[in-house]
Amino acid sequence: MRTVTAYATPAAKAPFEKTTIERRDLGPKDVLIKIAFAGICHSDIHTARNEWGESHFPLVPGHEIAGTVEEVGGEVSKHAVGDRVGVGCMVDSCRECENCKAGEEQYCLKGNVGTYNAQDYHKDNAWTDGGYSTHIVVDEDFVLRIPEGIALEEAAPLLCAGITLYSPLNHWNAGPGKKVAVVGMGGLGHMGVKIAHAMGAEVTVLSQSLSKEDDGKAFGADHYYATKDDATFEKLAGSFDLIVNTVSAHLPMGKYLSLLKLDGTLVNVGAPSEPLEVPAFALIPMRRSWAGSMIGGIRETQEMLDFCAEHKIGATVEKISGDQIDEAWDRVVDSDVRYRFVIDTATF
Amino acid sequence: MRTVTAYATPAAKAPFEKTTIERRDLGPKDVLIKIAFAGICHSDIHTARNEWGESHFPLVPGHEIAGTVEEVGGEVSKHAVGDRVGVGCMVDSCRECENCKAGEEQYCLKGNVGTYNAQDYHKDNAWTDGGYSTHIVVDEDFVLRIPEGIALEEAAPLLCAGITLYSPLNHWNAGPGKKVAVVGMGGLGHMGVKIAHAMGAEVTVLSQSLSKEDDGKAFGADHYYATKDDATFEKLAGSFDLIVNTVSAHLPMGKYLSLLKLDGTLVNVGAPSEPLEVPAFALIPMRRSWAGSMIGGIRETQEMLDFCAEHKIGATVEKISGDQIDEAWDRVVDSDVRYRFVIDTATF
Repeated sequence: MRTVTAYATPAAKAPFEKTTIERRDLGPKDVLIKIAFAGICHSDIHTARNEWGESHFPLVPGHEIAGTVEEVGGEVSKHAVGDRVGVGCMVDSCRECENCKAGEEQYCLKGNVGTYNAQDYHKDNAWTDGGYSTHIVVDEDFVLRIPEGIALEEAAPLLCAGITLYSPLNHWNAGPGKKVAVVGMGGLGHMGVKIAHAMGAEVTVLSQSLSKEDDGKAFGADHYYATKDDATFEKLAGSFDLIVNTVSAHLPMGKYLSLLKLDGTLVNVGAPSEPLEVPAFALIPMRRSWAGSMIGGIRETQEMLDFCAEHKIGATVEKISGDQIDEAWDRVVDSDVRYRFVIDTATF
Repeated sequence: MRTVTAYATPAAKAPFEKTTIERRDLGPKDVLIKIAFAGICHSDIHTARNEWGESHFPLVPGHEIAGTVEEVGGEVSKHAVGDRVGVGCMVDSCRECENCKAGEEQYCLKGNVGTYNAQDYHKDNAWTDGGYSTHIVVDEDFVLRIPEGIALEEAAPLLCAGITLYSPLNHWNAGPGKKVAVVGMGGLGHMGVKIAHAMGAEVTVLSQSLSKEDDGKAFGADHYYATKDDATFEKLAGSFDLIVNTVSAHLPMGKYLSLLKLDGTLVNVGAPSEPLEVPAFALIPMRRSWAGSMIGGIRETQEMLDFCAEHKIGATVEKISGDQIDEAWDRVVDSDVRYRFVIDTATF
């Protein structure tokens, strides 16, 4: 075991404390990563505030991790000391079920092992600690290569926000000739705009107001509409092949579904905890679909990183120090971030 | 104009009356069909009872029509006197929008012209009258060929119930290696079982009780479960590639969606008038989709009829006379029909 520095929250809604945690000794397939940056994802907050059920404390969140390889186990073949690497939302999965075998480890039938607040069933059910720390030990199969050309601070949020948008855009064939809308212009949405634009789609942002219109267009949006204006829904009725909804709030789904053309799909990547009310008549008359999507598999995450490097895409970030995490979380909850906080572990 | 015998309901919830209606003179592209049988669809009842909005009375329902060609207009090339033909839920569409051009006239952006209770915008907005009558005049492009090998009474319900199930089964690729569930074993559901089985899928019926299990298995179901038994949902969790929901009642959608495997789709072909409550968390963790589907296009309806003839599939019907329509409607509402009523116009 090795002792490393981390920021942990000792209880639900308690402030962060600088502390130390133990990382396991390297197994033959393990990689020790020196973390440079960890992104702050809204999921970190939901989890640490017990909004998604009972969490395990003290909790070290963080599943948008970018850094460099510091040491490798004896059988590691995919990564070498000094490599730029990342870790996303999972650090293992059963590897045996049909979904794992299909490369969709995020949908592991046994359950993937979350990067934090999860019990690693391959490691004596030890609780996992995430990226708000200086080092992490991860099986090489769940470590991603970060290509040259993306700064590590801009790469970190790709490991969750990036793949969360890339995967549905890829799965539902965003590309030339396709009209794609992104609902919400936050940490997730801004990645959706950049990636959908790079894929060649015609991109529309649907945001509550026009306050971020300039940013949206700079990120690649062709159009930008305010959803607080009902005329938006009249004007855009039946327009889109694909809508990716990044908003977890309780949206009027019938109105959003009405924006899809024949065979269009609306994909939720965020979810309110309460059920949404959806009229079946919003789906039937145009054979529309409402779907959900969750991050992406390891192979697809690597593909996303390579795609982002090729298209010079990173997250738009604001760097903070370890002692600013509490303040940053409050700002995330207030939607006061453009567009992702990354914690600089050099400040620990 | 020509005067023909029909059964009409003079007002919402009023009993049927035997009466006469006018059919238009044949235009150059029109076909005069002598109707042999007209199926009774639950939509007839919803419409005539004003459950889907204001209807136009007197109303002659019926959009599951089978008969023979009695006369054709001068430019008709697709059908000849004596041909066995059918008419489904629509008798025209704009023919110019992208959906019509794609052969998906049911999703016409201007709105298809319903076989009854619709205003025909190509015919001076005249109200259409349906198949509960001895004759109908329809543009040849909306007249289907009924192949030899299907009795007309068994063919009539294919024009709505048949295509309503065939289209989603076809669109979402039911076939060998696919596990398909059909929710509901009524007029729609029994067609779904027959067609999905003929497509080569492994078919499961999900019905409230096991009362129709023998029939379901005779129609081709491999498995049959009662949904009133909660163990059904535990046992079948994550099982299906495709579920077609024929039930219009307010089902607990989260439970049904949990039966889908990765990338599975649940398709509603029936719809309650109130929105359904659907948890987004039922979709996200397995990239599931909830979709809607409405009848099928003309080309696909012909394909369905040919498929049914090839596989010796017809609806399982109970023949009634014109003066039994009211009673039959009550039995449809009570789900007391195995599995479709067809009105024999020889009794008019």
